[in-house]
Amino acid sequence: MADIPDSHPRKSSLLARAKLVQAAAEGLLAESAMIAHGRGEAFDYMLGEETSDSAKKSIQEAAARLLEANNPVISMNGNSTVLAGKHAIRAASIIGCPVEVNIYYRTEERMAKLITTLESWKNEIAKEDPRANRVEILGSEADGRIRGLKGPRALCSSRGIEMADVILVPLEDGDRCEALINQGKQVIAVDLNPLSRTARMATVTIVDEVTRAMKTLCEILNERPESTNWNNKQNLREALKIMSQASERV
Amino acid sequence: MADIPDSHPRKSSLLARAKLVQAAAEGLLAESAMIAHGRGEAFDYMLGEETSDSAKKSIQEAAARLLEANNPVISMNGNSTVLAGKHAIRAASIIGCPVEVNIYYRTEERMAKLITTLESWKNEIAKEDPRANRVEILGSEADGRIRGLKGPRALCSSRGIEMADVILVPLEDGDRCEALINQGKQVIAVDLNPLSRTARMATVTIVDEVTRAMKTLCEILNERPESTNWNNKQNLREALKIMSQASERV
Repeated sequence: MADIPDSHPRKSSLLARAKLVQAAAEGLLAESAMIAHGRGEAFDYMLGEETSDSAKKSIQEAAARLLEANNPVISMNGNSTVLAGKHAIRAASIIGCPVEVNIYYRTEERMAKLITTLESWKNEIAKEDPRANRVEILGSEADGRIRGLKGPRALCSSRGIEMADVILVPLEDGDRCEALINQGKQVIAVDLNPLSRTARMATVTIVDEVTRAMKTLCEILNERPESTNWNNKQNLREALKIMSQASERV
Repeated sequence: MADIPDSHPRKSSLLARAKLVQAAAEGLLAESAMIAHGRGEAFDYMLGEETSDSAKKSIQEAAARLLEANNPVISMNGNSTVLAGKHAIRAASIIGCPVEVNIYYRTEERMAKLITTLESWKNEIAKEDPRANRVEILGSEADGRIRGLKGPRALCSSRGIEMADVILVPLEDGDRCEALINQGKQVIAVDLNPLSRTARMATVTIVDEVTRAMKTLCEILNERPESTNWNNKQNLREALKIMSQASERV
């Protein structure tokens, strides 16, 4: 891991970068993962690198819908696993749901590495919170399909995404988000770009950096909030408003 | 180099990416260089991928201050060398100043590779413009220090950054920009992120993509502009205004 002094004011951002660099070297990430992360960093700058009040409200809504779901699932890709995999397992322990590894550029090697990483974190977390023992890590079986998609992108787990009614999916591709919504599923997305197709398609969009968002989700899940009549367009407008006011922070 | 058709509307951006990918494979870049570039791409998208009028004004101011300086220097890192190293040598030929290689994650191997690259471009450019023969490529000696920094980050050249009164430094880290300003030096930064610490700390911030900015600088240096009473905050606000209007261009 890179040597970043404690005094550096952007230490958490630089640490996230260092984590991704290491994960890339270990073969956990697609080649475009670093560029995608850099793009996220730009939007996070515009947000002021903190979880906004409107993002907090969206996390509360996400928590409520995951707790109220019949078959919730948390879907993780490479970047979200590296940055927030432990939080995903903690969240799944509270919700009582599986975590599914589901990646856009699917290779069996990357799938296996991501699943192994999550399994080892699960065992670590289970020492403190035995509920983690019940969290299934799905993905390798690939015995389900997402209708409306072709090729390896359509693959999923029959007991995970295929049967889920509510899916928390950080950093999702727009095509897949659309296909899931078209099947009548609720999609809760974490996306720093409020203008992305995923952000505009999702049922609830958390416009926040994935590590902060997933950490906050774990805290809020323990408060057992209830769902509301959610206006996601309004939520996206509030995020864009914060970004467009960035010039006042200079 | 990747095969990108001339008709592609984002050819220059894709070429820049291809250059960095190749340079990374050759060991010229730090591991996090691609992330930094991805962040820049996102901000450049918001700018509309062109040099704005306010960026042009900042380049004019930069040119004036470099020409009026007692000891100007152009400090280059990995990404800026790969993307704009030739322009840096052309600018240094006109100004009559050295180019110093100065990198955040310093290794002797990367320093040597970057210096060799710049030396070979210098020899190439000198065939057309003999002034390039006088451009010293500094950095390997590391006999100077930037006060206020610790470890390898503090290393610089005594005849370059250490004695300079005006430093043009594309893509600088915030900590280092702050340390240079604290020593009473003028820092001219090229940074696509108007909210970065570097952008806000610098004396003159050119909010533009580094290849375009350095090319424009070479043109403007030949016009011999004079410095003004520069308001950098206003300059940053103008850049942010363009970015905040990006959603209207969707």
